[in-house]
Amino acid sequence: MNKATPELDCLYSARAANIKQSAVRDVFDISMREGLVSLAGGNPYLQSLPLEKLGTLAHDILAQEGMTALQYGNGQGTSELREAICHVMAEEFILDASPENVVVTAGSQSALDITCKVFCDPHDVVLCEDPTYVGALNTFEANQVAVHPVRVDEHGLVPEALQEAIVALRAEGKTVKLLYTIPSFNNPSGITLSAERRQQIVNICKQEGLLVIEDNPYGMLKFEGEFNRPMRADNPEDVLYLGSFSKIFAPGLRVGWALVPERFQRRFYLANEAVILCPPTLNQMLVTSYLENHDWKGQVATYRELYAKRCAAMIAALEEFMPESISWTVPEGGFFVWLTLPEGVDTYPLLHTGIEAGVVFIPGAAFSPTQENPNKLRLAFSAVDEESIREGVKRLAPVLIQAIAAAEGAAAS
Amino acid sequence: MNKATPELDCLYSARAANIKQSAVRDVFDISMREGLVSLAGGNPYLQSLPLEKLGTLAHDILAQEGMTALQYGNGQGTSELREAICHVMAEEFILDASPENVVVTAGSQSALDITCKVFCDPHDVVLCEDPTYVGALNTFEANQVAVHPVRVDEHGLVPEALQEAIVALRAEGKTVKLLYTIPSFNNPSGITLSAERRQQIVNICKQEGLLVIEDNPYGMLKFEGEFNRPMRADNPEDVLYLGSFSKIFAPGLRVGWALVPERFQRRFYLANEAVILCPPTLNQMLVTSYLENHDWKGQVATYRELYAKRCAAMIAALEEFMPESISWTVPEGGFFVWLTLPEGVDTYPLLHTGIEAGVVFIPGAAFSPTQENPNKLRLAFSAVDEESIREGVKRLAPVLIQAIAAAEGAAAS
Repeated sequence: MNKATPELDCLYSARAANIKQSAVRDVFDISMREGLVSLAGGNPYLQSLPLEKLGTLAHDILAQEGMTALQYGNGQGTSELREAICHVMAEEFILDASPENVVVTAGSQSALDITCKVFCDPHDVVLCEDPTYVGALNTFEANQVAVHPVRVDEHGLVPEALQEAIVALRAEGKTVKLLYTIPSFNNPSGITLSAERRQQIVNICKQEGLLVIEDNPYGMLKFEGEFNRPMRADNPEDVLYLGSFSKIFAPGLRVGWALVPERFQRRFYLANEAVILCPPTLNQMLVTSYLENHDWKGQVATYRELYAKRCAAMIAALEEFMPESISWTVPEGGFFVWLTLPEGVDTYPLLHTGIEAGVVFIPGAAFSPTQENPNKLRLAFSAVDEESIREGVKRLAPVLIQAIAAAEGAAAS
Repeated sequence: MNKATPELDCLYSARAANIKQSAVRDVFDISMREGLVSLAGGNPYLQSLPLEKLGTLAHDILAQEGMTALQYGNGQGTSELREAICHVMAEEFILDASPENVVVTAGSQSALDITCKVFCDPHDVVLCEDPTYVGALNTFEANQVAVHPVRVDEHGLVPEALQEAIVALRAEGKTVKLLYTIPSFNNPSGITLSAERRQQIVNICKQEGLLVIEDNPYGMLKFEGEFNRPMRADNPEDVLYLGSFSKIFAPGLRVGWALVPERFQRRFYLANEAVILCPPTLNQMLVTSYLENHDWKGQVATYRELYAKRCAAMIAALEEFMPESISWTVPEGGFFVWLTLPEGVDTYPLLHTGIEAGVVFIPGAAFSPTQENPNKLRLAFSAVDEESIREGVKRLAPVLIQAIAAAEGAAAS
């Protein structure tokens, strides 16, 4: 049965070759091994969810409204959930959203895939932060969309670099369509785009005829103080906003959404229909019921406190164990810290040395469209307890110290 | 807020223009009106599902395994469900399927979208029955895939017509990649591809280097006797098989699957990951639990008997009320009967006359890539009881009789 029929393999599309195994996948499989401390996966910590209560909500939905929950639904999502999503977004200062412009998707991953379908022809260019979310890079590649990184500093995307990139790409004859950005607590860098730059970035995109795709799964997981104001809040016609219940509730339900500028709404939800007919009805009803029947804001507050403590534990451990030649970001929310080693160190082979030492991380190259960032790595603090975080960093430090020494030795010789 | 920014509208991809509103959607919306008999929607009849029991299963999954059910899962689907799916397919004579080659998708609609991604570049040609499933046409269009219809007769696809179409398209310089077929109880025609033609069709495709996409959502809803043997059963390397729980269990869960020839398995599941990261975990666990804890084969038997009676009621009503100049298919399973009116009658404007008379159907043009079949229409018997079916057909008959008379009058004058 394993016999390949070579002449059939030309059946693949050109884009099939671009659908790459995520560099992250192997690491996740490894992370499951006994005794390892995994600082790799960005899984949310679900222990604090009211599981028994959720079971009862699901029971009641199926027993009382099963004929609806198990049937095909509207391709745009249920009106109840779209209404509820507008209330969720209002917590983050998006006050003018209409349920008509919300499209419920099979996770915000699917929303990004649909975005590619609606806006991008093969070889069109999407600009993004470098580094950026590996799942977004996979989706762009699967859609044959070209990705061009824009420089970031500690305040996020550099507006001048964005402007220059657009001009340079157009001078090369490229069609630049979208800016994809995770402005708050970026995955993987943890960096937040500053408030003043947010409007500058939107203005540049508007002037140049780009649509901003604002991906904001972590916005509510800010550790302290008022939420950051999303770019969408002040720019309803120029920003397509992606939201998700994966980080503030439960990723296993695969319920995300897009808030779409009105003039694009129709094509967007038709593309959603073409892709999945309708988002899963039971899941939409369960999310709606959870939002109605549970103190979901209290749950978010619990998450914020939990992740703040874990982040603090990670920063403290880094300060305790890491040498001066390594620097790291200090995020104000989200799941991730981004480490920079001296130039000349490649963190990819260190993955295996790390596993031998009992700790897993994700090499920086995974998050770059240019396969750059060899001397970087991502640590996630979301899924493990404070003691394990400290232990993981403690195990990682000698691996990195040794690699730096080896690189210095090689440079000197 | 409604102000369009025209210069931004060039942001659309070329394929966005191809993402069309399904002709079916308006009809579904209309179908909800009080007092109308809807013979339009192909919704399965869920009343006979054990809703209380399903509620208890969902409760137990969330209360006892919520940490798994609500978390990200494997991009290919859970191993338990993939194993169970192999047992489901074994009921239809697919005995050699390995769980390794099963990819769980967000409904088989998503599987078809992924199929387009993996195999088709823009303008590549997919061959299909004429008429065929409108949702498939939407997916092909959304992926900028060209669709070319192949002639069918009462025994399904005509092998000679398939061979001729391939040769003719290649002579025009077209790249023909796939044959998309619903061989059992086709939507919308109700026609079944005969057993002897099935292997002829696969042989032609194999010889010409096409992959067969066998979409089999209705296979188990055969009214009587042994199930039809799928093309995949004898051709594991040449047929990509699409299965679904939407018709034998519940569409609102959006759980379908692809059984992929081994050499394509890896690209296929990576594309699935790129599109949705992972299928919804809760839903997969609920389907698995339903298959394990409920007499699902008994449920399928109940559906078969129910739909057989409804189909018989529809055929009886057609015989009672329709004039001789109208003919129809007599399906052996599935949800649909396909009516042919005399040439010169266009059923599309009759949609509104029908609604005035209190009955809804779907005009034939919706199901044709060439917008042909103006003198055809689809009736669904799945979602309404026998008395309503008779009443609906009774209301429809005078509408069609009047239209035929008008067309004859126009032709004579």
